[in-house]
Amino acid sequence: MGGAADDNSIFVGEKPFMNYVTGVVIQFTTQGATEVIVKARGKFISRAVDIVEVVKHRFLKDQVKTTDIKLGSEEFTNKEGKDVRVSTIEITLLQIKKK
Amino acid sequence: MGGAADDNSIFVGEKPFMNYVTGVVIQFTTQGATEVIVKARGKFISRAVDIVEVVKHRFLKDQVKTTDIKLGSEEFTNKEGKDVRVSTIEITLLQIKKK
Repeated sequence: MGGAADDNSIFVGEKPFMNYVTGVVIQFTTQGATEVIVKARGKFISRAVDIVEVVKHRFLKDQVKTTDIKLGSEEFTNKEGKDVRVSTIEITLLQIKKK
Repeated sequence: MGGAADDNSIFVGEKPFMNYVTGVVIQFTTQGATEVIVKARGKFISRAVDIVEVVKHRFLKDQVKTTDIKLGSEEFTNKEGKDVRVSTIEITLLQIKKK
């Protein structure tokens, strides 16, 4: 599982949905990753879950599984000087070893 | 932990955000729940994560922790006869036992 550091992370934002799905699939199929971490903040969390589910159930069916899901919060001060909190998610997808 | 069945579930939808936060807090503080499951589908998944984070970091700080997070998919046929998939999340919050 070694080397699965930030290089194998996909950060979900407002690009077209399929960009992220393809991004994850490519990591596993042509970049040789055994683990990919899908990350998102705020309103993009729902999207990150959708991406993971589409990869798991359609594109890489029975080839990957979710091994870890981390929720968190990031706090920062916005332009108006107000303290803001945003939720985060990190979903780890692991390649299922072929028997 | 017994009895933490569907009665302790909070299903997140489009009601005001604080309704759900209060709902979770009340389960723990006045309903005697030791475990509460926050559930959501589709675009409400981000909201469910926000609710859990606000409960954990503000209202019940150091009193509850996330013990399990399940992602899933529900498939159904919509009014137009089209097969639709929607992502789901279930986040389990557990009361931290006082020492």
